[in-house]
Amino acid sequence: MSQTIPIKTNNKLNLQPLNMPNRLLLGPGPSNVHPAILAAMNTPPVGHLDPTFLNLMDEVRSQLQYVWQTDNQMTIAVSGTGTAAMEATIANSVEPGDIVLIGVMGYFGNRLVDMAGRYGADVRTITKPWGQVFSLDDLKTAIETHRPRILALVHAETSTGARQPMEGVGELCQKYGILLLIDTVTSLGGVPIFLDEWGVDLAYSCSQKGLACPPGASPLTMSARAMEKLQNRSSKVANWYLDVNLLGKYWGSERVYHHTAPINMYYALRESLRLITEEGIENCWQRHQKNVEYLWESLEGLGLTMHVEKEYRLPTLTTVCIPPGIDGKAIARRLLDEYNVEIGGGLGELAGKVWRVGLMGYNSRPESVDNLVEVLRQVLPK
Amino acid sequence: MSQTIPIKTNNKLNLQPLNMPNRLLLGPGPSNVHPAILAAMNTPPVGHLDPTFLNLMDEVRSQLQYVWQTDNQMTIAVSGTGTAAMEATIANSVEPGDIVLIGVMGYFGNRLVDMAGRYGADVRTITKPWGQVFSLDDLKTAIETHRPRILALVHAETSTGARQPMEGVGELCQKYGILLLIDTVTSLGGVPIFLDEWGVDLAYSCSQKGLACPPGASPLTMSARAMEKLQNRSSKVANWYLDVNLLGKYWGSERVYHHTAPINMYYALRESLRLITEEGIENCWQRHQKNVEYLWESLEGLGLTMHVEKEYRLPTLTTVCIPPGIDGKAIARRLLDEYNVEIGGGLGELAGKVWRVGLMGYNSRPESVDNLVEVLRQVLPK
Repeated sequence: MSQTIPIKTNNKLNLQPLNMPNRLLLGPGPSNVHPAILAAMNTPPVGHLDPTFLNLMDEVRSQLQYVWQTDNQMTIAVSGTGTAAMEATIANSVEPGDIVLIGVMGYFGNRLVDMAGRYGADVRTITKPWGQVFSLDDLKTAIETHRPRILALVHAETSTGARQPMEGVGELCQKYGILLLIDTVTSLGGVPIFLDEWGVDLAYSCSQKGLACPPGASPLTMSARAMEKLQNRSSKVANWYLDVNLLGKYWGSERVYHHTAPINMYYALRESLRLITEEGIENCWQRHQKNVEYLWESLEGLGLTMHVEKEYRLPTLTTVCIPPGIDGKAIARRLLDEYNVEIGGGLGELAGKVWRVGLMGYNSRPESVDNLVEVLRQVLPK
Repeated sequence: MSQTIPIKTNNKLNLQPLNMPNRLLLGPGPSNVHPAILAAMNTPPVGHLDPTFLNLMDEVRSQLQYVWQTDNQMTIAVSGTGTAAMEATIANSVEPGDIVLIGVMGYFGNRLVDMAGRYGADVRTITKPWGQVFSLDDLKTAIETHRPRILALVHAETSTGARQPMEGVGELCQKYGILLLIDTVTSLGGVPIFLDEWGVDLAYSCSQKGLACPPGASPLTMSARAMEKLQNRSSKVANWYLDVNLLGKYWGSERVYHHTAPINMYYALRESLRLITEEGIENCWQRHQKNVEYLWESLEGLGLTMHVEKEYRLPTLTTVCIPPGIDGKAIARRLLDEYNVEIGGGLGELAGKVWRVGLMGYNSRPESVDNLVEVLRQVLPK
């Protein structure tokens, strides 16, 4: 090895081994990881084409189908965080010029607008004030006005804590020949979802909320109708990493190498789904509902109010109104610095107006609520 | 919670806790993870906007700058595996219609061709038989013929084990006003790289090879010249997840939320880079060189020959010619099934002709060589 170039050391750091604080993560995600999941993730990796790993991919698929309540064959995990899975649904369903109708009732609806535009969609939007949801009539009117190829809705708006009711939306889309795409980032594992019953064609989620994993591998599913649109494209999917034609050959029987999967994240995901299956998905949903009701009650006991109407509140994420005269950011910072408790602030229209409190996956427990209420009692002005 | 839809259990599995085999990973990656890195990854996550995590991001940047030998401010990790970082370089540098000249001397050159095409590039290629490399004259002639905006080369071709010499390429690109983009997936941490001295404008890598991490967070760097082209774009980057304009606001002083980073993968990456820094990057390169020479010698002792001319062989990945009459796939499968040793097969032009043997990161040790040679001795016909 000939090497005549001198080594630059100006960026060389002298670091100590990793030493991170132990936080109670009650923000919009990531949430705390179930200890069994953390242990599974800590298993030394095998190769991405190892027969044992290919078998694990099949297990992940089946369990995701169960947790999402779908029989979609194209049910996989994308090798990135939730936003990558979001982009995968858009990249694979949108062809340039397609009219895409997006329901914007918060930050993540706007993200879909930006993304769909980048893939050449003719984007149309309907909007609601942040914290509200669309009625079936709202959607019907918008569909009749815009005649889209795709309707995209956020089932669980992480920025507002609102749950978009899905009853009847699928029938409406089928009637007009529209693909239905939904964001289940903050609902999978914590909020009842029935993808097939609801007639959903594309959905995505993440690992670090209801599934209690670290972030890094993100569920994606496409119905036969969505796959048909993909197969009939006249142009290549404008994204190589997320192209479901290629991903499908790795996840399917061909097992063609596409990219190196984040092996340990899949270990975590498999263990997470195993735990949910063991608990039973319906019990998991009920646990989230029960604990969030305890949260609301406890916060009301402190004199706080919730931003979203009770009927539409998510069991996984609650937006809590910051009382007048209170510096919400300073309170959140004190919780973190003094008590190792993370809660989230508001985004967009709700910036400075709400805190976002997550009770997701492993953290959906009465102890989380008690811990938060105790520290809030200490930092809120009497 | 009203719930009248019956729960489908047809996809519900009854799984046991995770139980994966313990492999010696001597293929093209992933490689075995250093135990200290696995331990760091096992730390409970904090939030992606936690001040301690933002500080960790800064540490990752500095250490990547050191390991890559660059002062590029835009040095980050992408929240996906190596292919995502590859796509990030293309997505952020290519505008529709740009002439992009790609050196294809193996599988990953072809991947760049496919990707660049998806982002609207006018792709031109120069090719070499798999296992060979381009001379400076080859490159000069091609540049004068095609007059590209970007020249993309694979520094370490993972499919062939060949190292593309970089001396003089940067000067050539500067002379013609071309951005130089290189693939360092199989070189970062194991093969001498001097990004700034070489005049490289865009580079990407992965975590699961020379850095001895699991896959999942992937280094990306862009020079001031590359950033200038990005800032002068007339269209948005056609990829939301990988848009460096947005990523830069999360990694930069603004700390604007973009996506949820795969926290634990960054823990692993930080620990990996800390270990390399502790060893000293030049010592790390020398270790890889020394151990691969021991590998070549040992394999030659078994009567095997290498596919690539010695001068251009990578210290991280060796292509070994499969002797005539031997079923290479069957041998690799026996190594895996009977001895828990993974080696890779050939891709594309080299399918069935070579095995790919990686000695990367933590696995670049004499014990790895001894172990492989011992098991090869047992499975190869006498």
